[in-house]
Amino acid sequence: MHKLVLIRHGQSQWNLDNRFSGWADVDLTEQGMAEAKEAGRLLLEAGYTFDVAHTSVLKRAVRTLWGVLDAMDLMWIPVVTDWRLNERHYGGLTGLNKAETAARYGEEQVKIWRRSYDIPPPPLERADNPSLRDPRYALLDPSMIPDTECLKDTVARVLPYWHDVLAPAVASGQRVLVAAHGNSLRALIKYLDGMSDEAIVEMNVPNGVPLVYEFDEAMKPLRSYYLGDPDAIAAKMAAVANQGKAR
Amino acid sequence: MHKLVLIRHGQSQWNLDNRFSGWADVDLTEQGMAEAKEAGRLLLEAGYTFDVAHTSVLKRAVRTLWGVLDAMDLMWIPVVTDWRLNERHYGGLTGLNKAETAARYGEEQVKIWRRSYDIPPPPLERADNPSLRDPRYALLDPSMIPDTECLKDTVARVLPYWHDVLAPAVASGQRVLVAAHGNSLRALIKYLDGMSDEAIVEMNVPNGVPLVYEFDEAMKPLRSYYLGDPDAIAAKMAAVANQGKAR
Repeated sequence: MHKLVLIRHGQSQWNLDNRFSGWADVDLTEQGMAEAKEAGRLLLEAGYTFDVAHTSVLKRAVRTLWGVLDAMDLMWIPVVTDWRLNERHYGGLTGLNKAETAARYGEEQVKIWRRSYDIPPPPLERADNPSLRDPRYALLDPSMIPDTECLKDTVARVLPYWHDVLAPAVASGQRVLVAAHGNSLRALIKYLDGMSDEAIVEMNVPNGVPLVYEFDEAMKPLRSYYLGDPDAIAAKMAAVANQGKAR
Repeated sequence: MHKLVLIRHGQSQWNLDNRFSGWADVDLTEQGMAEAKEAGRLLLEAGYTFDVAHTSVLKRAVRTLWGVLDAMDLMWIPVVTDWRLNERHYGGLTGLNKAETAARYGEEQVKIWRRSYDIPPPPLERADNPSLRDPRYALLDPSMIPDTECLKDTVARVLPYWHDVLAPAVASGQRVLVAAHGNSLRALIKYLDGMSDEAIVEMNVPNGVPLVYEFDEAMKPLRSYYLGDPDAIAAKMAAVANQGKAR
């Protein structure tokens, strides 16, 4: 049997401020760093170890990974960073407060933008897209850099990374840790769990909690479960679901 | 012209305690972490950036690298960890206080063990060598794991990493940062500067200070220099040289 561990980054400053982050490179809060270390302690306690870790090119995911590796005494393992694990690109909503946006456009419109499978938020003006001038995307063909993304778009860039990089590593026996984002993980989970376009809308990933997937030898997912206190995890998932409500 | 930046880790707990560290996985002190961030600020201020970073599998070097990358907003670049960049293995002296060892064996004997080119310290008993049971060396052929090393032995394992990995990367135009240790860097510097076995004995590398090498197109070293305040750097180098004196 093979295992894979996924973790969404800990609380970021814009999680706390209830803003859409997307590709904006927002850092963790103190609580987010504590969540990362706690996740590492949980994994260590449960007997996990890793041969390699993968993360996005956004610092809230990298720093979460660093916190986990530090707590597990695994700072020496190889770490691969890749833009395909980035958060969904939130287009013109990037930086806006979710509650304000809901008050202006209505909760339903915000839920559509946050959670509909194939309706993207309004795009950034191409010329204003800061990722075109960001060195971390300098080696990408500019046509790969989105101005906005719906979850379907995120699935379309995450799954090649799964099929080409992550799944072969797990299948070869490597113990793999992935530190990523709410929507890049939802994209992967939708695929692994065979969820419908509708079902994924209601599924939320809590910050900073290890999510374990077990696979058979043919890489068919057998089951998945979070590590940690179930009540605390349920409270975190409800908090994510409520972020798009007007206040 | 090509550039390469080397940095020795910031102050570690055993630098502070004046103990031989070698392959013991000692962490940085608060001062050591501050030195790493300060080195990052210096590099940023001087206009440096990096495409890739290499470090050892020891946490004082990894954490120094993390501090530099954090200060430079480069947490997303690829990081390669390799045991060949580890500190020299100090054999049976590992963990001993340098001043106590000097009081017992004499300063000259300690200087021989610390700085002679080809006389290694007394070896660990093979069965007692903890690296044989350390997962970070599990994929190495056990014959590659030393029980002690003189600087000549360290040169013999660092130079393949230079020739096979670092030099080709620099020659290809990559901007490379290496965070390593006093003696793995002395091994590399001896080669780059064509220093004699005698001259290297007197050469010390300060903790946490960026050392820039410039190369011509054929990778011939042109010059090298530290970044930062010259008086502070000279004081740090003198402190390293004085560590082996009895108190």
